[in-house]
Amino acid sequence: MPSRGETAGERDVRWMRVALEAARRAGEAGDVPVGAALVEGERLLAIGENRRERDQDPTAHAEIVALRAGAALRGRWHLEGTTLYVTLEPCAMCAGALVLARVDALVFAAADPRAGAVRTLWRIADDPRLNHRLEIRGDVLAEEAAELLRRFFRARR
Amino acid sequence: MPSRGETAGERDVRWMRVALEAARRAGEAGDVPVGAALVEGERLLAIGENRRERDQDPTAHAEIVALRAGAALRGRWHLEGTTLYVTLEPCAMCAGALVLARVDALVFAAADPRAGAVRTLWRIADDPRLNHRLEIRGDVLAEEAAELLRRFFRARR
Repeated sequence: MPSRGETAGERDVRWMRVALEAARRAGEAGDVPVGAALVEGERLLAIGENRRERDQDPTAHAEIVALRAGAALRGRWHLEGTTLYVTLEPCAMCAGALVLARVDALVFAAADPRAGAVRTLWRIADDPRLNHRLEIRGDVLAEEAAELLRRFFRARR
Repeated sequence: MPSRGETAGERDVRWMRVALEAARRAGEAGDVPVGAALVEGERLLAIGENRRERDQDPTAHAEIVALRAGAALRGRWHLEGTTLYVTLEPCAMCAGALVLARVDALVFAAADPRAGAVRTLWRIADDPRLNHRLEIRGDVLAEEAAELLRRFFRARR
């Protein structure tokens, strides 16, 4: 449900900026800068920053962190009615988790040529063989998200 | 490293029985009976039961539970040198997580015709395009694992 006078595309950009802020915080803390925002209608249900290094948890990608937080807040594992915004195309783990959690829609910023699993290497999140499929939109603020990643890896070299 | 006089196949069966025990406990607690055992050499590093319903966590598959517990015990997200035993072929989320965690090998019992992502629908865990690949063996105590699932779903009908 967009705000007055706001197009669906403008709404996507507005929520992606929230995910980008989470990505920036991850980068400042030493994790690869990827961030996610889980949105229900006009409500921000949960935020996820990539926390793999901080938590030494191989599953702590931004998407998983946001899904687990959203389910904990709802008190149930079904996340119907939500949209996940994430700054990088999800990997196989995260794409699979989005399907399992029955998230309605996925909006991502930059494609991931190495591990992207919703468009690039596989199309896991809208495969007709699975019992749930997400609506998917990509390329929302992709350049800002990609630049954040490039800057992070340049600084580490 | 197999025990004296034990073949590699016998070793797989021995550890799969540990995973099957975890699957049984999951079923008794009302969760779909899937269990996992994360093994390092001859040491059981972590156990995972499917806890989705108990925890209302969409990501709490047996494999993810075991990987997170193993990483927490090691104090690092890399799980090189480990083998994951699981009673059902991993889904996309779990297959992706096994790759991310750099687990050496995966041994599963029953194939999953609906969502299996290491052999059935996709081959995510040994794809040459990814930066890590697992050694995979299937069909270890498959009938016992499948019967456990059938009995669970029959009782629920």
